[in-house]
Amino acid sequence: MGRLAPPWDRLLLDARLATLRDDLGAYGAIEDGALAWKDGLIAFAGPARELPGEPAALAARVESAGHRWITPGLVDCHTHLVFGGDRAQEFERRLQGASYEQIAREGGGILSSVRATRAADEQALLAASLPRARALLADGVTTLEIKSGYGLDFETERRMLRVARRVGETLGITVRTTCLAAHALPPEFAGRPDDYIAATIEWLPRLQQEGLVDAVDAFCEGIGFTPAQTRRLFEAATALGLPVKLHADQLSDLGGAALVAGFSGLSADHIEWTGEDAVRAMAAAGTVAVLLPGAFHVLRETKLPPIDALRANAVPMAVATDLNPGTAPLQSLRLAMSLACTHFRLTPEEALRGATHHGALALGLHDRGRLVPGQRADFVQWRIGHPAELAYWLGGELVHAVHVAGRRVQ
Amino acid sequence: MGRLAPPWDRLLLDARLATLRDDLGAYGAIEDGALAWKDGLIAFAGPARELPGEPAALAARVESAGHRWITPGLVDCHTHLVFGGDRAQEFERRLQGASYEQIAREGGGILSSVRATRAADEQALLAASLPRARALLADGVTTLEIKSGYGLDFETERRMLRVARRVGETLGITVRTTCLAAHALPPEFAGRPDDYIAATIEWLPRLQQEGLVDAVDAFCEGIGFTPAQTRRLFEAATALGLPVKLHADQLSDLGGAALVAGFSGLSADHIEWTGEDAVRAMAAAGTVAVLLPGAFHVLRETKLPPIDALRANAVPMAVATDLNPGTAPLQSLRLAMSLACTHFRLTPEEALRGATHHGALALGLHDRGRLVPGQRADFVQWRIGHPAELAYWLGGELVHAVHVAGRRVQ
Ligand SMILES: [Zn+2]
Ligand SMILES: [Zn+2]
Repeated sequence: MGRLAPPWDRLLLDARLATLRDDLGAYGAIEDGALAWKDGLIAFAGPARELPGEPAALAARVESAGHRWITPGLVDCHTHLVFGGDRAQEFERRLQGASYEQIAREGGGILSSVRATRAADEQALLAASLPRARALLADGVTTLEIKSGYGLDFETERRMLRVARRVGETLGITVRTTCLAAHALPPEFAGRPDDYIAATIEWLPRLQQEGLVDAVDAFCEGIGFTPAQTRRLFEAATALGLPVKLHADQLSDLGGAALVAGFSGLSADHIEWTGEDAVRAMAAAGTVAVLLPGAFHVLRETKLPPIDALRANAVPMAVATDLNPGTAPLQSLRLAMSLACTHFRLTPEEALRGATHHGALALGLHDRGRLVPGQRADFVQWRIGHPAELAYWLGGELVHAVHVAGRRVQ
Repeated sequence: MGRLAPPWDRLLLDARLATLRDDLGAYGAIEDGALAWKDGLIAFAGPARELPGEPAALAARVESAGHRWITPGLVDCHTHLVFGGDRAQEFERRLQGASYEQIAREGGGILSSVRATRAADEQALLAASLPRARALLADGVTTLEIKSGYGLDFETERRMLRVARRVGETLGITVRTTCLAAHALPPEFAGRPDDYIAATIEWLPRLQQEGLVDAVDAFCEGIGFTPAQTRRLFEAATALGLPVKLHADQLSDLGGAALVAGFSGLSADHIEWTGEDAVRAMAAAGTVAVLLPGAFHVLRETKLPPIDALRANAVPMAVATDLNPGTAPLQSLRLAMSLACTHFRLTPEEALRGATHHGALALGLHDRGRLVPGQRADFVQWRIGHPAELAYWLGGELVHAVHVAGRRVQ
């Protein structure tokens, strides 16, 4: 018997499991299920009748799940939730009819977030960021990616990534950090984007040495960095052994998705303008498509990502909040799932896989995202009658309990 | 001195008040504010420097509001939150490509909610409805309208309205009940809509006698009831002294908004297809425009309500969730405010007035919706830096505390 053999730490009976296993039917559902864990890992997730003995003999604690549905813990694989200030008044100015130019003249836009983030010390940034991460957790998120990118100088990028780590330690959830220094051009480098990219390349090993970087990202766009600049950054990241991902093809098709696939990147994110050739390249490279319906919604975009091509080429589709102060002030991954269904016509099952298994793949994590023995015991018990409700309800207090590595955190 | 003279029950200092008074600037804001109440009513809401004495001498308890923003309690003036079952799997079937006809053949649509509601006893309906009302309350709602309309027979309509009353009693918030028996044609009356309207007219005085009806509503639409049938119902309601409101012009312009204005109705709701003449009739009649962006969002409608005409004619615009299992599974009024901004281009201030003062007007309630002496002490303390954040954030745990009639309920 392996290390997950009984006796287990805990065993839940009367559970309805949305395992998300591919070899079962919709949602990988097991209605008369049991879930057990040991040392933070799932030891059993299957039909109760297949339990290898009498429940009381199998685990130190046996409880009823009250026939509640249980899913893997949600994985939000794309957020910018560490930032200073907010941009609510810019949102208001736009609705009052101000143009983007006016707002920029008034000091708005991404650089206003940069100013506020630079001005905030580590404690202030943590205090601002924790409630956002807590809101995600309260709605079922147990693994979370956080990007830098509102510092645009070494010290502030470093501070953001440190705060990201501290968010995870404080809440007892997994936080994966991504260096997105190539998010926008800082005023100090106005007119010198190549020099700025060179600077960020110089920061990478220093940040990596401090254990602050799990991956490298960039904003490849007409208003961001060029494919050539992105490529330079990715070559440096790859040389350091850091995986890459990309804000790709959101507002125009610059070939970003194909570029990141060329580096066997973890994910191409947004990808509204990505064409079918690039989708095939993503499929071949194992690059996940990260769909971000929050920004699509807030910006009232109309160009849809190539969902049918992604399906046809079996590219895993993840769904994430993109939580950020400018284009997606979105503090619920379930709400992102709902928006993915309404705007992108994902099915609720695709949305749930996107916010669990595929979200984990987009972070390079193969130890979570499904209810399968050996995976981390990250799971959520929900107050619902059917898994489709997770994407159906807009809002609502649906979480009954959240466990991370077998420990209840919510 | 009047009955609200000091000593007050409580006084909050260091408060930032969004009073929504019209005689002040944006949001009726008072940044160095104080808020006091007595016997459940607001006794003082103004600049701290205008307090009529030393704080300690004014109230039995004096506390700091910690410079938090305070708004009136939110008012959700249009919900269908009492129902049996849900329609998540119908939502899923639509996203899997099923047509409305297929779903109807499979037993879906509004009549599936009617079947589930008829099958649920009072206790089961209350148990299903309370978490939805709790979710609204957790996001700041202190006054709530609930409609019947999934019974379509006397006993079940009565049961729904009783449950609505019990929701208010259980949570300690105000619930206004609306009889919407004319929501759809029950199978028993197939082909006989006039007979059904006659039946609902017969039910009204009986329901009214039991104290279950605060207003009367109907669904006036090609797939609902005709203007002539609606008029007959409204004449009966008016004869009983019951105010009317209407699901008007959502999918086509049948003249519903003008019709309800002709009865000096409380509100015309949805009104995507309402024309400018009808808007002028609403203005003349004091009929509130209730905007329901949730259904617009879920149904992916494109026809916008006549916002400019409503503004030009100074028709009060309310914003509500429309919480219902078919077209708006929306459990947050703040989220409705956000959708009203994004889809209908309301400003955050219009959205907040719509979810407070104007929502109250749509219910015929003149005793709440602003922070003004004499109004009910229904108010919310928020974890925000600016009132625009209430419509800016999608999701998030922004509520610090909720008071109803001066008593903390959340
Ligand atoms: Zn992003
Ligand atoms: Zn309605």
